[in-house]
Amino acid sequence: MSKLIFVTGNANKLKEVKAILSAGSTPIDIDSESLDSKYALFRRDLPFRYVSRILVDEVQGSTQEVAKAKCRRAAELLKGPCITEDTALCFEALGGLPGPYIKHFLEKLGHEGINNMLVGFESKKAWALCTFAYCAGPGEEPILFEGRTDGAIVPARGPAKFGWDPVFEPAGTGLTYAEMPAEQKNLLSHRYKALEKLRVYIQSL
Amino acid sequence: MSKLIFVTGNANKLKEVKAILSAGSTPIDIDSESLDSKYALFRRDLPFRYVSRILVDEVQGSTQEVAKAKCRRAAELLKGPCITEDTALCFEALGGLPGPYIKHFLEKLGHEGINNMLVGFESKKAWALCTFAYCAGPGEEPILFEGRTDGAIVPARGPAKFGWDPVFEPAGTGLTYAEMPAEQKNLLSHRYKALEKLRVYIQSL
Repeated sequence: MSKLIFVTGNANKLKEVKAILSAGSTPIDIDSESLDSKYALFRRDLPFRYVSRILVDEVQGSTQEVAKAKCRRAAELLKGPCITEDTALCFEALGGLPGPYIKHFLEKLGHEGINNMLVGFESKKAWALCTFAYCAGPGEEPILFEGRTDGAIVPARGPAKFGWDPVFEPAGTGLTYAEMPAEQKNLLSHRYKALEKLRVYIQSL
Repeated sequence: MSKLIFVTGNANKLKEVKAILSAGSTPIDIDSESLDSKYALFRRDLPFRYVSRILVDEVQGSTQEVAKAKCRRAAELLKGPCITEDTALCFEALGGLPGPYIKHFLEKLGHEGINNMLVGFESKKAWALCTFAYCAGPGEEPILFEGRTDGAIVPARGPAKFGWDPVFEPAGTGLTYAEMPAEQKNLLSHRYKALEKLRVYIQSL
């Protein structure tokens, strides 16, 4: 199969994904590039390093609609197979919202504000949802691989390096994502669960 | 100029827009159609009534990015001039959010939940923002017309007929949008202010 392009604008996500995929018995080769600006697509073709940068809008809708639209569009622009990744943080009290819009809320509100949004509600339960999408090429229907980790929104604990990691505590761990060693997080995270499904699928191709 | 197409999926918005535009000294003729499903575009060509239904995704981003992307796409699909409308409800405490995502929050949380989101914050201030976009045709850059009305989020009062109208009280009125007679609302609403700007522009074409 053609080399897969992983589309991301987030260096930390890229690092997590590479760590998880390269840890298996049959490591998967993914061509990737991270950068500051959002949803940029990079293509690196040997022997030249050719980089084309394209912006993909994220749509509004359910996590599945958001994931499919982005992956479909990325495959059109890249003219080849690609995977995309979307992360949502869903609050039980808000009927699953902010969900796919969490990054906008985190940006505007910070960790304290995220907690404050739930002051008026009894439930602080939340689930982290990762959706990987694979699209075989232009015009193909993307296939989704979802991973979910249940937990709760808590006042920030641990290093504030990676998004909302300090305010999400997976159930039964007593630790926020931010407080966990990378190895522990990689084994129970929403991203890990989704990636495992994706890996099985890709290796069957 | 060609007949303008007003793109909307909301019968109440359509009614308001028609009322405001037809009230002026030089009423503007707008071909329109309302329907249940979101962001559908309708085209009615005489003598036949030809209706083509096309779905346009709404993107994530600022209110301006959301408005421009939708109008640009609608003009491409309709192959002609069109106007689109976007409404946002922005909470001061949330840095302007939910903003363009308000419809999703309203759908999941209802009026009580919308209020509960602000329990943990001192400020209940909010502003209603209407953005009309006009696009002259495919490939043209949309022009935006914004109207803003300042006020506060309050427990619901008045008939629950139109979205978040019962929980938004424009400053200095003592009434929620829902409690006002249509004539009063049409003269101070965010939509009216944006439409006035749009009307002046369209009449100059």
